[in-house]
Amino acid sequence: MKECCAVVGIYAPGKDVAVLTYFALYALQHRGQESSGIAVSNGKNIECYKEMGLVSQVFTQEILQRLKGHIAIGHNRYSTSGTSKIHNAQPVILKTHLGTIALAHNGNLINYEHLKKMLLERGLTFATSSDSEVIAKLFALSEADTLEEKISSIMGELRGAYSITMCTPNELIGFRDPLGIRPLCIGKINGGWVISSESCALNTIGAEFIKEIPPGEGVIISQDGLKSFAGRKLKQESLCIFEYIYFARPDSLLNNRSIYSARYNMGRKLAKEWPVEADAVMAIPDSAVPAAMGFSYESGLTYIEGLIKNRYIARTFIQPEDHLRKLGIKLKFNLVVENIKNKKLVVIDDSIVRGNTTKAIVKLLKEAGAKEVHIRITSPPMQHPCFLGVDTATYGELIAANKNISEIADFIGADSLGYLSLEGLMEATGYNREKFCAACFNGEYPLLFDEKIE
Amino acid sequence: MKECCAVVGIYAPGKDVAVLTYFALYALQHRGQESSGIAVSNGKNIECYKEMGLVSQVFTQEILQRLKGHIAIGHNRYSTSGTSKIHNAQPVILKTHLGTIALAHNGNLINYEHLKKMLLERGLTFATSSDSEVIAKLFALSEADTLEEKISSIMGELRGAYSITMCTPNELIGFRDPLGIRPLCIGKINGGWVISSESCALNTIGAEFIKEIPPGEGVIISQDGLKSFAGRKLKQESLCIFEYIYFARPDSLLNNRSIYSARYNMGRKLAKEWPVEADAVMAIPDSAVPAAMGFSYESGLTYIEGLIKNRYIARTFIQPEDHLRKLGIKLKFNLVVENIKNKKLVVIDDSIVRGNTTKAIVKLLKEAGAKEVHIRITSPPMQHPCFLGVDTATYGELIAANKNISEIADFIGADSLGYLSLEGLMEATGYNREKFCAACFNGEYPLLFDEKIE
Amino acid sequence: MKECCAVVGIYAPGKDVAVLTYFALYALQHRGQESSGIAVSNGKNIECYKEMGLVSQVFTQEILQRLKGHIAIGHNRYSTSGTSKIHNAQPVILKTHLGTIALAHNGNLINYEHLKKMLLERGLTFATSSDSEVIAKLFALSEADTLEEKISSIMGELRGAYSITMCTPNELIGFRDPLGIRPLCIGKINGGWVISSESCALNTIGAEFIKEIPPGEGVIISQDGLKSFAGRKLKQESLCIFEYIYFARPDSLLNNRSIYSARYNMGRKLAKEWPVEADAVMAIPDSAVPAAMGFSYESGLTYIEGLIKNRYIARTFIQPEDHLRKLGIKLKFNLVVENIKNKKLVVIDDSIVRGNTTKAIVKLLKEAGAKEVHIRITSPPMQHPCFLGVDTATYGELIAANKNISEIADFIGADSLGYLSLEGLMEATGYNREKFCAACFNGEYPLLFDEKIE
Amino acid sequence: MKECCAVVGIYAPGKDVAVLTYFALYALQHRGQESSGIAVSNGKNIECYKEMGLVSQVFTQEILQRLKGHIAIGHNRYSTSGTSKIHNAQPVILKTHLGTIALAHNGNLINYEHLKKMLLERGLTFATSSDSEVIAKLFALSEADTLEEKISSIMGELRGAYSITMCTPNELIGFRDPLGIRPLCIGKINGGWVISSESCALNTIGAEFIKEIPPGEGVIISQDGLKSFAGRKLKQESLCIFEYIYFARPDSLLNNRSIYSARYNMGRKLAKEWPVEADAVMAIPDSAVPAAMGFSYESGLTYIEGLIKNRYIARTFIQPEDHLRKLGIKLKFNLVVENIKNKKLVVIDDSIVRGNTTKAIVKLLKEAGAKEVHIRITSPPMQHPCFLGVDTATYGELIAANKNISEIADFIGADSLGYLSLEGLMEATGYNREKFCAACFNGEYPLLFDEKIE
Repeated sequence: MKECCAVVGIYAPGKDVAVLTYFALYALQHRGQESSGIAVSNGKNIECYKEMGLVSQVFTQEILQRLKGHIAIGHNRYSTSGTSKIHNAQPVILKTHLGTIALAHNGNLINYEHLKKMLLERGLTFATSSDSEVIAKLFALSEADTLEEKISSIMGELRGAYSITMCTPNELIGFRDPLGIRPLCIGKINGGWVISSESCALNTIGAEFIKEIPPGEGVIISQDGLKSFAGRKLKQESLCIFEYIYFARPDSLLNNRSIYSARYNMGRKLAKEWPVEADAVMAIPDSAVPAAMGFSYESGLTYIEGLIKNRYIARTFIQPEDHLRKLGIKLKFNLVVENIKNKKLVVIDDSIVRGNTTKAIVKLLKEAGAKEVHIRITSPPMQHPCFLGVDTATYGELIAANKNISEIADFIGADSLGYLSLEGLMEATGYNREKFCAACFNGEYPLLFDEKIE
Repeated sequence: MKECCAVVGIYAPGKDVAVLTYFALYALQHRGQESSGIAVSNGKNIECYKEMGLVSQVFTQEILQRLKGHIAIGHNRYSTSGTSKIHNAQPVILKTHLGTIALAHNGNLINYEHLKKMLLERGLTFATSSDSEVIAKLFALSEADTLEEKISSIMGELRGAYSITMCTPNELIGFRDPLGIRPLCIGKINGGWVISSESCALNTIGAEFIKEIPPGEGVIISQDGLKSFAGRKLKQESLCIFEYIYFARPDSLLNNRSIYSARYNMGRKLAKEWPVEADAVMAIPDSAVPAAMGFSYESGLTYIEGLIKNRYIARTFIQPEDHLRKLGIKLKFNLVVENIKNKKLVVIDDSIVRGNTTKAIVKLLKEAGAKEVHIRITSPPMQHPCFLGVDTATYGELIAANKNISEIADFIGADSLGYLSLEGLMEATGYNREKFCAACFNGEYPLLFDEKIE
Repeated sequence: MKECCAVVGIYAPGKDVAVLTYFALYALQHRGQESSGIAVSNGKNIECYKEMGLVSQVFTQEILQRLKGHIAIGHNRYSTSGTSKIHNAQPVILKTHLGTIALAHNGNLINYEHLKKMLLERGLTFATSSDSEVIAKLFALSEADTLEEKISSIMGELRGAYSITMCTPNELIGFRDPLGIRPLCIGKINGGWVISSESCALNTIGAEFIKEIPPGEGVIISQDGLKSFAGRKLKQESLCIFEYIYFARPDSLLNNRSIYSARYNMGRKLAKEWPVEADAVMAIPDSAVPAAMGFSYESGLTYIEGLIKNRYIARTFIQPEDHLRKLGIKLKFNLVVENIKNKKLVVIDDSIVRGNTTKAIVKLLKEAGAKEVHIRITSPPMQHPCFLGVDTATYGELIAANKNISEIADFIGADSLGYLSLEGLMEATGYNREKFCAACFNGEYPLLFDEKIE
Repeated sequence: MKECCAVVGIYAPGKDVAVLTYFALYALQHRGQESSGIAVSNGKNIECYKEMGLVSQVFTQEILQRLKGHIAIGHNRYSTSGTSKIHNAQPVILKTHLGTIALAHNGNLINYEHLKKMLLERGLTFATSSDSEVIAKLFALSEADTLEEKISSIMGELRGAYSITMCTPNELIGFRDPLGIRPLCIGKINGGWVISSESCALNTIGAEFIKEIPPGEGVIISQDGLKSFAGRKLKQESLCIFEYIYFARPDSLLNNRSIYSARYNMGRKLAKEWPVEADAVMAIPDSAVPAAMGFSYESGLTYIEGLIKNRYIARTFIQPEDHLRKLGIKLKFNLVVENIKNKKLVVIDDSIVRGNTTKAIVKLLKEAGAKEVHIRITSPPMQHPCFLGVDTATYGELIAANKNISEIADFIGADSLGYLSLEGLMEATGYNREKFCAACFNGEYPLLFDEKIE
C-alpha cells in the first residue's frame, strides 16, 4: 500500500524556518519517502530546493542555510515504483500576477483530467503531470478579489482530496477539502505558526497543538496574524479511515484522540469479535503492534514478539537469484524462533490487499514450527479500490473482492481468519460512520464526480 | 562578450535523430557552453534531457539511447556568470491542447516583460524566467486554426530576435523573426531534414545545405514533407553584424558567402584604411586570424603567430592570489617571444568592448619586447549597447562611447589604433547597410518597441 | 556506542556470489553503517567495489553484475563521526607474491601501532590507517610454507580482536583471534560455503548453520572442500559480552542460544534483583525490548510501549537552532502519552555510558506525565573503557567510573536505578565468566600487550 | 599518440601553494587530460586530492582551500582509453618510516615488472599497478642515510624514463633519470621555488626560469634553501625527440631554445629537402602550424588556413551511426573550402603513425576540391615502437615499418609525400644526435635492460 504525502507550512519571522520545516518533514517521513522539498520566502523571492530521497538525504546544512526567509512550506512525496520523477516533486513554484507562489499538496483530485482538459482548451500549458500544478493554475486564474475568495472559488471546482500548504511572498496559507479526506492541523510556535499534516510534527519541533483545520476551511497567516476562513462546506465528513488503520503515526492525534489508542482498541474489539484458543498473540510490525497489545489485554493471551523489524531499514532494489526469491519477508523481519516454535499463535495485521504477503508470513511462521496460525485483521475486508489517492489495487487484484473469508483463509494458509467489523472499527476510533470515508470496505464513495459543491 | 545560443531540429524517420542532433550541437558548441539539451518525439511522447555543461559532458551513449523517435530538437545555451540555472536550460517542454510541444530559442525578446505581464494578468503562470516560455505560451494561446497561422499570429506579438526550432509529436517547425536577426538555415539529409543555426552543423553531419530561412518565414516538416510559409514581413532586414565579426564559425555560410572570406576581407580593408609601417602582422586568436592574413596579403607584411591559443581550453573559476591576478591573458595564450621581440607589430582583433583585455595584451607584448604595437580592429568603435541579446555592456562601460580614438589608444597603450569603417565592414561582407543591424556601431536600432508588425 | 563491523565470505561456484554477499551484508547492516564493500574473485583477478553508505545505497544491480566469480568477501564498516574516509573502507585489496588477496576485518588490534612501526622500520609503506592493511602485510611477509602456517604465524604476532574473511584467487579463508572476541560462524549453502559474523545472515540467504569457528582456529575453502585448522590457542575465551547486550541481532545464535532469549533472561534476572512497585514496564527500543518482556513476565507488571522507534530511521546531520537542541530524543522516538501519563514506570535499557541520553529520556517521560520512572539496566555499571574496538568512552566520560549508583540516579533524574549484576548477566547467557570479556564492567582485560601467544 | 604526464612541485612558505600548483598544472594540461591531482604538506600531514578529468574540472575553490601548507606537488595524467582508473591517478601518497611522502611521476620504467616481482618476493604488497608505487617503495626501502643518497641509490635500480617531483613533510624533491628522457626544469618565485615539466608553467605563474635539471641530477628544497645533487650519470643523453616534434608547448624552452623556433626550422628544412610546386602551404593544426610557416618562408609559397581547430574541443565518446563514421576529422576541424578548392596544396603534419588519420585528411581535402595534396612530415618515418612511455603502436601497426614511402603515399592518397630527414630534424633543434633518443626513427634504444648504471 502506498502512503500519502506530508505537507508542512511555517510562518515564523526571526526563526530559521527552513530548519524547522526540515525537522517537521523528518517527523512526517512515514507519509512519503520518494522525494522531499522545501520552499522559503524572504518577502520578495521564493527559493526552493527539492530532490529525490529521504528528508535526511535531500538536505544538507549548506542547502538549508541558503533557504533564508520568514515563511516556509515543505513536502514529502510518497514512493512509487516507476514513473516517479524529479519534475513531479513538490513544492510547485510558479510566478503569477500575485507574485511567486509555492504550493504543496497531500491528496488526489478525482477530476484532475477534466480540469486539465478544460485549462488546456483555454490555451494554458502544463510543465508537470501533478495535480498540484492544476490547483496552482486555478488559483492564479481566479478573478476573486481576496485570497480567501480565490481559495473558496477553486474549492468549488476541485473534487477529491487535498490538504494544502501554500505561500505567497508574505502569506502562509493552509486549506483542506470540504470532505476533510486527509488531515491538516495547526500549531503555535514561539512567535509563529505551524501547519502540518499530523500533530506529531508539531510535537517534534516544540510547537503547541491548536486544532485541526476543519474540512472545507482554511487559514491565512501574515504579519496581521492568523485569520481563519470558511471555504466550502458539505454536510458529510469523510476522513480516510486508513489514517487510523495504517497511515498516521501512532503518537499523532486525530479528532482529539491518539492513533495509538485507536489501534489498541481495534485489537480489543478484534479479540471480542474473533476469539480463539491460542498460546500467544503477536503482531506484524509496526502498525499492528498496538492492536496486538489490545488483543492481548482483552483476551488474556500473552503478547509475544515473533517478528522484529530490522533495525536498519532501507529499501533494496537488488533482484535475488531464483532460490532467494522468497527472502523478501526475511529481509524485513528478524524471526524469533523460540517464541513461535510449537505455539498456537494469533497474528495481528492491519489489512490484506492481495494476500501474498500474509501468505508468505504464515508460511514463514509454520516453517519456524508454529502449530497454528490465526490471522486477525484490524480492518474489514478490502473490497473496493480507492479513487482518492491510496494506491491499493484494482478490483481484480483485491483478494476480498474475489474470494470469501474462508477462501482467503485457505489461500493464505491460516488456521483461521477474522476481520474486524466496520462497526468495531468505528467504535475503536470513538466516532461513527458519518465521520469517515470507508469506501474501500463498503463501496460508499463520498462524492460523485458531477455533484456540485456550494 | 557573451555568445548567442544554438538551435537544431531534425526530422528523419528511421535514423537515430538524437545522435544526429548531438553531433550538430557539438558542431555549434561555439554558440553556447552553459547547458545543452535534446528533446525527441516518437510520435506520441516527447522525452527531453538537458543539463549544465558542454554537449560532450551532458550526453552519454546511454542517455542518447533513451531518446528514441523520429523528430528531435536541440539547444546549446550561452554561458553567463551567475544566475544561470538548470531550470532555464532549453528545450522547454510544455503540455498544450495540441499535445506536448518542445521549443528551442536563439535570440532575445525586447518586449518580454510586457508580454509576460500581459499573460500574468490573464491568470497565466510561469515556471521559468526564459523568454522561450513566453513564446510557447503565446503559441498555445493562439486561436488561429493552423500551425502556420498560429506562428504568424505570435510573430505579430513578439518583438526582438528569435530563431526557433520547435516540435509537436509529429511535426518539426522552424521559424525566424521578421528582421532575421539571428541566422537559421535548412538542409537535407538522406530521407530527412535538418534545421540549424549555422550551416557548419549541416556539413558536420553530412547534410546538404538547401537555403537560409528568410526573415519572417518558417517551415513545417511532417510526413507530408516540407512546407514553407510566410509569416510576417518587414521591409528591412537586420542580421546581426557580429555574426560576421565574431559569433559564427568561419566555415559557416551566411548570405551564400563564407564567414572566413568575410573576415579575410575585413583584414584587407583594414590594411587599406589604416596602413602602417611595421615588421609583421599577427592576430588575437581565434576570430581575428583570417583578418590578419588578409591584412598581410594586402599590406605585404609577414603574418606571424605571436599568441597561440592553448590546446586545451576549459574555463577556470579559481581565483588566483593578488600577484597572479594578471595571469588571465597568460592562461589563454602561449606567447611566442621570438616572433615579438624587437618587432614593430600590427595586431588584429575583432572588437574592443571595455578595453581592459586589449590593454593587457598590449602590455604583454611590450613586456615580451615588442618595439611597437599597432592595434587594428575589424569593426567600428562600439558605441551603443545591444538590446537584442548580445551581452556587451552599458553605455558607461563601452570605452568607445566615452573616449575618442586617440584617448582609447592612450588607454590601451598602443602606438596606434585603427578601427575598420562601417562601409569597409559592409563591403567585406559583400552586402550593404540595409542587410544588417549595426546598432552597436551606429545606434540605429532596427525596431522600436511600439511599432506594429503587419 | 559505536558498533562493530560485519564480515562475510562466500565460496559457491555456479552461484551469483556477489548477490549472496550483498544480502548477507544487508542482514548484518546493524553491525556497521558507514561503508560497505564486496570483493569477488573469478580465479584470476579480484574485483572490488566499496563506497560510503548503507549496503542498499552502495550497490546497484549494475555494480553487482560486474562482480563475477566464485568467491566473494564482504564488509560493513561501523559509523564514526569525523575522520571516516573512503580509503579506510574495506575489503582491502593488495597484490602479493601469492597473487591478489582481499581481506575484511571485524575487530581491533591493540598492538597496531607497534606492528606498524616495526613494518615501517623494515622499509614497508602504508596506504591507509586501517589495521587490516597491517594484517594483510604480515600475511604477505610470512615465510611459512602453507596458508595455514602463514595464518598461524601472524596469529603469533597479532594482539587484540580479529574475525577475518579473506580470499586469494582460488581460496576463501576465515579465522578468528585466539580469544574469540568477535563472533564468526560458518554455514553451508547448496554447493558452497558461507562465513559470517552472525548466524542471522546465514538464515537470510538460505544457508544452513554449521558451527561457530572456535577461537584461534580457521577454515580454508577451495576446490578441495573445507579444511579446518588450529592456529593458536589460549586457555581462556573472551567473547565480548556486549554482543549479547547490544551488538548482535536478536535472531542470531551465539554459543547455541539465541540472543533474544538471553536478553529476555536478562529482564527476568533484573526483575528479581531489582523489584519495584509500579504500574507497567517499558523498554528503550530496540535492544531492550526482549528484556522488558522478560521483566514483565517475571514481575507480573504489564508490558507497555511508551516509546516507539520511528518507522524510517536515517541519521540527520542538521544542527537545529538552540531551542531545538533537545529534540534529539524526539527525532528517534514516538511518545505514546496515554501509556505514560500518571503511570509509575519501570524503564529498561541496555546500558548507561555517559548518562546524558538516559537523563533526556527520563525528562521526556516525566514531562509526558509519568509519576515515577525506575530505570533498570540489563548490564552492570560500565566502569572501564574498551581497548578492543568498542568506542565507548574514556574513564573521565564514563558516568559509572565517576559516580556511585545513587549519584547516577540523581543525575539522570530517575526515582530509582538498578543495574543487573555481572552474575545475573552471565546466567542470562547460560555461561559463566570464563567465556567472556567483561572488562568494561570488571576491568579484567583479557590479554596484556606483552604476553606471548604460543 | 598518447601524451606524457606533467609534474609540478612548489616550495613557497606564505603562499597559496595549492593555487599556484593548480595554475601550473593548468598550463601543462596538454601533457595529460585523464586525471589530475595535488598533494600539499603543512609540515606535519600531507593532504591529497585527485580525480578523473581536466584540471579545471577536478578542482574547485573549496577543494583548493582545504589544501593548506607550504609545499605542494601536482600531476596531470595522460589519457588512455580503457583501463584508466582513479586508483592509478597521482600523486601517490604513502606512509613511510620517514613520514608520509607524496610522489608524482612523468615517464615509464622499462624494468617495472622485474622490480615489482623482486619486491613481491620480499613480501611487499602493492595497491596499484602504477610504476610510481614501485619508485616510492624502493625509496622507502633504501637504507642509505640521506635523501640524496637514497635517491642516488634507487637511480641505480630504475631503468627507463622518470622525471619526478616528490615531497616529504618538510622537503620538496625533484629528480630526473640519467638519460634525461623527459624534461624537468626549475624556477624561482618570490620567496620560493618551482619545479615543472616545462618552462611554460613557470611563465604562467610568474616564476623566473633558472635552468633545466640535468639528466641524472636532482634538487632538494627545504628551509635551508635549494641543494642540487648529482645522482647517477651516463655518457649519453637521450631527451625524447618527440618533445620537440609534438609533446611540448610551443612557448616552452628546451636546451635554451623555444619549441616554436625548432618547429619553424623543421618546416624550413622540409622545404629544402622536399620542394614541390604548389599554390599554398597549410598545416594540420596545432603542432604543425609553426612548421608550415617555416615552409612558407623558405619556399615562398603562401601560408593558408585550410583546417581550423574547433574553438571548443572536448572529447566525445558517442558512437555515431554507420554513415557518420567518417565524421571524426570533421568534428575536430573546420574546413575553409575557399582556401582549398582548385589549389595545389602542401600539407604539413608532425608524424604518421598508422596512416589512417592522414588518409582521412587527404580525402577530406580532395573532396573539398584540392587539385593536389602534397604531404610533408616534420619527422622521419616512424619505424620502431617506443618502450619508454609513448603509446605509439606495435611494429605491425606502424605503417612506416611495413611500407616504403611510395607505398605510404599511395595508401594515404597523397600526390607526394616527404619526410624530414633525421639530420634535418636534429639541425632544426640546434643539437646533434648525441642529445636525443630517436629510437622510434632509427631503432637505437638508449639503454639495454641489463646495463648497469654506475
